[in-house]
Amino acid sequence: MIYDAAIIGTGPAGLSAALNLQIHSKNFLWIGSRSLSDKVTKAERISNYPGFTDVSGEELNAAFQNQVQAKGLQITEQMVGAIMSMGSHYAIMAGSEFYEAKAIILATGVANTGTLPGEQEKVGCGVSYCATCDGMLYRGKTIAVICNNARFEHEVKYLADLAETVYYFPNYKGVGNLPANVKVMEEKARGILGEKKVSAVELSSDEELPVDGVFCLRDSVSLATLLPEVQVNNGRIVVDRTMATNLKGVFAAGDCTGRPYQYAKAVGEGNVAAHSVIEYLAD
Amino acid sequence: MIYDAAIIGTGPAGLSAALNLQIHSKNFLWIGSRSLSDKVTKAERISNYPGFTDVSGEELNAAFQNQVQAKGLQITEQMVGAIMSMGSHYAIMAGSEFYEAKAIILATGVANTGTLPGEQEKVGCGVSYCATCDGMLYRGKTIAVICNNARFEHEVKYLADLAETVYYFPNYKGVGNLPANVKVMEEKARGILGEKKVSAVELSSDEELPVDGVFCLRDSVSLATLLPEVQVNNGRIVVDRTMATNLKGVFAAGDCTGRPYQYAKAVGEGNVAAHSVIEYLAD
Repeated sequence: MIYDAAIIGTGPAGLSAALNLQIHSKNFLWIGSRSLSDKVTKAERISNYPGFTDVSGEELNAAFQNQVQAKGLQITEQMVGAIMSMGSHYAIMAGSEFYEAKAIILATGVANTGTLPGEQEKVGCGVSYCATCDGMLYRGKTIAVICNNARFEHEVKYLADLAETVYYFPNYKGVGNLPANVKVMEEKARGILGEKKVSAVELSSDEELPVDGVFCLRDSVSLATLLPEVQVNNGRIVVDRTMATNLKGVFAAGDCTGRPYQYAKAVGEGNVAAHSVIEYLAD
Repeated sequence: MIYDAAIIGTGPAGLSAALNLQIHSKNFLWIGSRSLSDKVTKAERISNYPGFTDVSGEELNAAFQNQVQAKGLQITEQMVGAIMSMGSHYAIMAGSEFYEAKAIILATGVANTGTLPGEQEKVGCGVSYCATCDGMLYRGKTIAVICNNARFEHEVKYLADLAETVYYFPNYKGVGNLPANVKVMEEKARGILGEKKVSAVELSSDEELPVDGVFCLRDSVSLATLLPEVQVNNGRIVVDRTMATNLKGVFAAGDCTGRPYQYAKAVGEGNVAAHSVIEYLAD
């Protein structure tokens, strides 16, 4: 089955797009975190979202959650690793799944983490974004896992069941209980080394830590990795007033299109992107 | 005093802009209806404004009103008749007042009523948008008043105190009690006639009704009348991604910039326009 559209991201821009595609009875896939936007939740006070007077981020996120549930919107909680043009439509690799959609709305937010030096060059040659997809390749081996969110720890456990040793680089606070063969590193990973294949992680101490593979578990992959053909300027997706990117059928909304990084802007752009998708599908 | 900015319009786009200018401590004038958006209020059900699940327009407008009051935002309830460039800033004629501002945010919505044939050519030659400003010119004379909102009836009463006869063309339902010399017309005004000055109103019956002047009391004047230099395409203000128009210091947001006519889009654009004004003022 080919979906009418896929929305990548469950922040305010993604939600706004989803509400509108639903009203127009489009058959769409909505991929992202079921907890919606971490950025919203962590906001201490929001004073400029019209309709909500000085709410906390948790309150606004709860209002968004209520709306998702009341409208029966389904969220597919997977990390999108890559999007590829198939000519008339797009293929989306998410976790171990493969989806197809006629149009794409990128609402991926601002990636807090860039890629590491050496990372992009070795995707598929020792660098993976998906434990489920590639974990089996490292049975009995030594791997590094770079992770920016505690909610991926179940994937770390899955990898620890397969690999002999897991060097764990958490980019967050409050690491939970992990299996004995997971060594939580105090140093940071500074880069990924290797000629053709991954051979080691470069540590902040300048030392090299030999590994057979590196898993990067992040809330989002960089745009360059996700959809390399999309036009980006200073790390932001270039869009026109209809939220169209340079790629036919690919639209973008929210923080990923640039400043101002504001919830009101995000919901506005998500709305416009959805309406542009509806027009695009009608053509 | 020259304001930092003037926001024209109190719908969702204007509100979003006002909230942001306030946060940034700008000294701004916010002109429009204190009842905010009629369009929002009249909406039976709003299903795609993120954060509010299936609310009525009245409920959403009440949330906006609460926010305006809680934040102490002041609304100047006047109709803007014209905006003129003064070189380094803009002058705003509103009612009988004259204001000055360094930057302008047009958030005027979609004008429901166009201008009548013959109207624009005779502004200042018998056509007026402001009872307070021009009423005295018609003492003892015969005038027509074309009005699209009951809330202007106090201006009709003011005019009836001055003029001998007022032919009243209400473009709304539920006309209130008006003085005896106000003749509520059942026919529509189809155009404004006269060589150099206004001489008559052309009625939908093809008859001509001789008058000395015509007052048009509408929620908004047409963009062509308001600010003739601003670039418009198909009745919509042309803006870029920063909501800048072709005029330096003039920005626009909401329905007046075109489709989709959506509250989420309006608040997004109001937010962006405010941030662009803040940058503009800093330059």
